[in-house]
Amino acid sequence: MASHKTKTTRASQSLVLPLKMGFLGGGQLARMMVLEAHRLGIEAHVYSESLTDPAAQVTSFHTQGKLTDFSSLQKFIQNVSCLTFESEFVPPEILAQLEKKAQPFFFPRPEIMKRLQNRQSQKEILKEFKIPTAPFIPVLSQADLQQAWKKLKGPFVLKKNFGGYDGYGTFFAKKEADTERLKEKLPSSPEGFVAEQFVPFKRELAAILVRSSQGKMISLPLVETSQVNGRCDWVRGPVHHPKWAALKKRLFSMLQKLNYVGCMGVEIFDTGKELWINELAPRVHNSGHYSQNALTENQFALHLKAGLGLDLPPLQLVLPQFVMVNVLGQSSEPLQLPKSMSGHLHLYGKLENRTGRKLGHVNYLGPKGAALLRKALQERKKLQ
Amino acid sequence: MASHKTKTTRASQSLVLPLKMGFLGGGQLARMMVLEAHRLGIEAHVYSESLTDPAAQVTSFHTQGKLTDFSSLQKFIQNVSCLTFESEFVPPEILAQLEKKAQPFFFPRPEIMKRLQNRQSQKEILKEFKIPTAPFIPVLSQADLQQAWKKLKGPFVLKKNFGGYDGYGTFFAKKEADTERLKEKLPSSPEGFVAEQFVPFKRELAAILVRSSQGKMISLPLVETSQVNGRCDWVRGPVHHPKWAALKKRLFSMLQKLNYVGCMGVEIFDTGKELWINELAPRVHNSGHYSQNALTENQFALHLKAGLGLDLPPLQLVLPQFVMVNVLGQSSEPLQLPKSMSGHLHLYGKLENRTGRKLGHVNYLGPKGAALLRKALQERKKLQ
Repeated sequence: MASHKTKTTRASQSLVLPLKMGFLGGGQLARMMVLEAHRLGIEAHVYSESLTDPAAQVTSFHTQGKLTDFSSLQKFIQNVSCLTFESEFVPPEILAQLEKKAQPFFFPRPEIMKRLQNRQSQKEILKEFKIPTAPFIPVLSQADLQQAWKKLKGPFVLKKNFGGYDGYGTFFAKKEADTERLKEKLPSSPEGFVAEQFVPFKRELAAILVRSSQGKMISLPLVETSQVNGRCDWVRGPVHHPKWAALKKRLFSMLQKLNYVGCMGVEIFDTGKELWINELAPRVHNSGHYSQNALTENQFALHLKAGLGLDLPPLQLVLPQFVMVNVLGQSSEPLQLPKSMSGHLHLYGKLENRTGRKLGHVNYLGPKGAALLRKALQERKKLQ
Repeated sequence: MASHKTKTTRASQSLVLPLKMGFLGGGQLARMMVLEAHRLGIEAHVYSESLTDPAAQVTSFHTQGKLTDFSSLQKFIQNVSCLTFESEFVPPEILAQLEKKAQPFFFPRPEIMKRLQNRQSQKEILKEFKIPTAPFIPVLSQADLQQAWKKLKGPFVLKKNFGGYDGYGTFFAKKEADTERLKEKLPSSPEGFVAEQFVPFKRELAAILVRSSQGKMISLPLVETSQVNGRCDWVRGPVHHPKWAALKKRLFSMLQKLNYVGCMGVEIFDTGKELWINELAPRVHNSGHYSQNALTENQFALHLKAGLGLDLPPLQLVLPQFVMVNVLGQSSEPLQLPKSMSGHLHLYGKLENRTGRKLGHVNYLGPKGAALLRKALQERKKLQ
């Protein structure tokens, strides 16, 4: 939970209300940001495709539209004084148009979103800032796949350059013959792929870093994350690693030089001795949902405060350990709210249940992490 | 934070989603309840007079209407499966009509709201349950005022039977001649008044009690409250008083016998040796706003959980002491959001500022109460 202050970039000591903040996207991440905007007395304007989207349900200021409909989007953004994103996957041509606008104040800046949303350019940023990450090479053709096996000296992971998430758009080459099999995937990504050396990690970690428009930076605790079929299943923390302080320093330096504003989710491979960055997500992140109950301020409020140039508060743990478990759909039956739950339940208001869909999460606090995780996994069965 | 479990009244172990909850009223209390409904994945339907009301802004399910328009209200309530109140001052004739409806599940029940919204009948309930409170007599005429001075043996407080709040509708008879002066107030309350013996209290205390539809009861900590011109200025806690345990026991017994469901705000006079009940508010209450940050669950979520028959969780303090300060309008200038605030800010989205209007509140947590209160009062100046 380090903090790191640099020079002030926006001078005024207060913001006049009412203040209109725009949110692009209507899913659960936008929903949870909107709830924090309400708390701060900020008018939360949501732009999303459907009136029944999770974030659309929780504000009276909703505009129905597609991210690709620039004229509708333009009307929306003219009405807000700052704007943030729920997802990095805004089409790059839209980001390019937003980039030309001086108003509203976008956070993160569209130019940064463009660089981070593309897998290859994200990897190049990591390389540029000397941040440890798996070696990679761009893949556009079948020949590239064979080259990848040679240059990366064996097994690799093939990732779509654009739009991959939660394991979608990710393929494995475990043996050399797999490079032949993977060629059929190539047409599925017009933006190409990167092949990344397979990292034999012991566990996956994550953290949320926050940089405000005033240049102040803080980090939330390092956590362990567990994925099932490429989707986050549970998170626990805080965890400690001797290499985290040095890695965080490099990441802070990157945020500073990119003039990045907002939360950034950082996914990390723990190889035992080393910490390697897996991916950066330029937004609030599933691995930080625990903060709603486990910390004295949560990632959603911190993201907004960062964008508004408000002070980022010092963070304290409410109890020594925390666990978050995701509630994933198991069928198409409606979800049931159990009468007895010891955890803090957060549901997203999704009207349709389907297998694997993220419907909510539950946060647990306690003195001991292992017992907490057992309880959380047991109790989740009531919901799934 | 006592708990007290009795027999289960609603048998099912879970509630099928989506679940529609109605809120009568659109002010800050409804707003903060709605935000907790969103967290729990409950569809929050608000009925209020204006689209720009604090609670109307924070949901997409808003119905514009007056509480006195029964046909509009009826349409609204037919669409929800349970319904709660932001204020006890729903016209009694409307409550009488609601009382006849088996659906939705109202909490608290309209019949209880009717008894508690009327000052005289509330005092009679307190008397019936042997709960210490100032002696009182009904006042309808000038002769009653003179009788009140005699029977109450001196100074008294004259309160409107219906609609008084935050000091409005409350008048003082400090000397016998005041009974003459107060006669001019009599036409202002068609429902009459009660005269209550003036209680020379040392300080004012308060607490929130909660009873669920399953019969489980818990209480939030006892707090000290400070009023300026009849409106809550600050709250701090937890405080302790040797008589609180016994008083709480009587209050729990009252809730149980009334089959009361939801939060109840309890305002208390601390005379030094004794605790006397000043007023009961059948709803969430300004003295409980600290719970949003200071406790592991807040009064707004507890109210909803009580109504839904969900388990009421054990409550823990996040840090040993807490303070809440109200943010009251000081002028008609727009409110400004300070960039630097060490407290947890909660604003209500009120579009108009005016002197004395409740615009928000700030919660503070820390190890020591006195230092916290000084800091809170100092920091509030940035907002007012």
